[in-house]
Amino acid sequence: MASVLAAEIASQPETIARFLDRQVDPTRRVVAGLPRFSYVLLAARGSSDHAGIYAQYVWGLLGGFPVALAAPSLHTLYRKPLRLDDALVIGISQSGQSPDVVSMVEEARRQGRPSLALTNDPDSPLARAADHVIELGADERSIAATKTYTTQLTAVALLGALWAGEERYLAELARLPEAMAETLGSAVGPAEVAAAELLYAPMLLTIARGIALGTAHEAALKLRELLRLPTQPFSAADFRHGSIALLTEGLAALLVMPSGAAFDDMMSLARDLGAGGARLYAISDAPAVDAVARVRLPMAAVPEWLSPPVAVLPLQCLAMALAAERGLDPDRPRGLADKVVRTR
Amino acid sequence: MASVLAAEIASQPETIARFLDRQVDPTRRVVAGLPRFSYVLLAARGSSDHAGIYAQYVWGLLGGFPVALAAPSLHTLYRKPLRLDDALVIGISQSGQSPDVVSMVEEARRQGRPSLALTNDPDSPLARAADHVIELGADERSIAATKTYTTQLTAVALLGALWAGEERYLAELARLPEAMAETLGSAVGPAEVAAAELLYAPMLLTIARGIALGTAHEAALKLRELLRLPTQPFSAADFRHGSIALLTEGLAALLVMPSGAAFDDMMSLARDLGAGGARLYAISDAPAVDAVARVRLPMAAVPEWLSPPVAVLPLQCLAMALAAERGLDPDRPRGLADKVVRTR
Repeated sequence: MASVLAAEIASQPETIARFLDRQVDPTRRVVAGLPRFSYVLLAARGSSDHAGIYAQYVWGLLGGFPVALAAPSLHTLYRKPLRLDDALVIGISQSGQSPDVVSMVEEARRQGRPSLALTNDPDSPLARAADHVIELGADERSIAATKTYTTQLTAVALLGALWAGEERYLAELARLPEAMAETLGSAVGPAEVAAAELLYAPMLLTIARGIALGTAHEAALKLRELLRLPTQPFSAADFRHGSIALLTEGLAALLVMPSGAAFDDMMSLARDLGAGGARLYAISDAPAVDAVARVRLPMAAVPEWLSPPVAVLPLQCLAMALAAERGLDPDRPRGLADKVVRTR
Repeated sequence: MASVLAAEIASQPETIARFLDRQVDPTRRVVAGLPRFSYVLLAARGSSDHAGIYAQYVWGLLGGFPVALAAPSLHTLYRKPLRLDDALVIGISQSGQSPDVVSMVEEARRQGRPSLALTNDPDSPLARAADHVIELGADERSIAATKTYTTQLTAVALLGALWAGEERYLAELARLPEAMAETLGSAVGPAEVAAAELLYAPMLLTIARGIALGTAHEAALKLRELLRLPTQPFSAADFRHGSIALLTEGLAALLVMPSGAAFDDMMSLARDLGAGGARLYAISDAPAVDAVARVRLPMAAVPEWLSPPVAVLPLQCLAMALAAERGLDPDRPRGLADKVVRTR
């Protein structure tokens, strides 16, 4: 565990606890002061986009708000601003530098619509363009985003909890660092077992449904950037729409299936995949999963709406263990020279 | 060319011409009669979801409307209806049977918000639930959607043209069947050349940007369902965010790069991929692409906003040629028993 990545992964419970300590009250004031809006327009790229998928579920479930994930190139490539009537615009960017995310938030100001930035850097162009900033405070030294991502998820969860307007959600959120520490304590061993099995896997599907869907996308991206492993994320629902044709003997799949409303559907898909000869690895708190998966990467049991920042931790452990098995340096992933990617 | 699929592919120019003949005037009346709305909430699954990606660009560009792609399981899995204030709700479903798409449109009615269905079946539950129906009239006999998809794209383009409120867009749309016929006339030969090369390809990336992005997603799905070929769709912008690590000597990639605002960025990515040893196949009207791609699958030159229903045709020809090379029956793709997929 000598890599920078390992240290960043281990620091997450503390980072999240500090984020909650510092940001719950300011965010409560921001939310109370927002003007009326009908929906959220969200601008993000890369891992931040996966936090956006989580936002789509949790802001819908807890706040009732539809979330439009902006196609940022509409703005930067085609120079055609959207009409932002009735929108709250939220930009998510670790560095706060992504020009396409910044330009969407600037457009909100131009049209007199409220905006919010979720970023590590309160002096960044994104933070300066937005009406309000939720400072993530997760300054990350590793190239692959870990605690930046879990802090983004926590900020998204916090906004959902505040929009729900029930204190019990905030109480559940306060227990998140503990659930994360418990998960990191139990995930490393099974991650090493799974990594040894997956040493020669030519590709891996990552599948989830509902609230966990963003985690399947993040898992696919993380394994791709750290391991150059061809991965494909799927919604379990969409997977049955055509892509089930990919199922062949020996196919490797990682299922993200925490307890909750999506669990039965994931179990049913797991059985179908298993019957078709797939080899299954699963991130779950439910012991019932042991009957369908070769290896279960355990996570602490948490309310389903809060599962993403916990479920991603065994994935991080798996990615790190696989990098070790394959002799790759997780601190120098090939082709990722810089944390800031400037998409025009 | 004896398969049902081949006949369906060939019939598309005629199907689209008939759709435009019958639906331009009724759709004009529907659009004129809609109450004020601030954004579109779109519900779709599978190929229809890729028409939704096109909608996100073309309704944004031509109408200025943000488009939220609904997470339908929010409704069916978590039983939590969204607040639809200021939304126009649009459901896209070939059969009109998808319960999650139907339930989103029913919710619009419950909340007194306007709704629109794009479906082949005017007697389907989706059509009955919606205020207005745009009948696609593309009754498809092949299991893999071809003309259903291009008709959905054309309906999306028609709505964009009407929202733009300029007759020149409708004039450009009227020339679409001709551009499709020209493309089908020239794509088969190069598709066969590309298919012969790709016979043993273990996987294929499909990459596009902006308006063409939905075509990359549709290409990935179509090759997956017809050929069981592992494919991954990428936005060129997101591909540089981490997934560039996938680039290895001999990697096969299909680039969708019609002339337009996204073209230069796609050329720049093509050069980087080529320098990294990737083997490139490209769908494009631009002869400049011949310098970077092993095979260019030609398409007719059309205004960029209208490129998706044209750009998908060489892909259909490639999928069919690859099925022939691999000895697969394109009319009986494995694992796709039924055209109606009932996602709960």
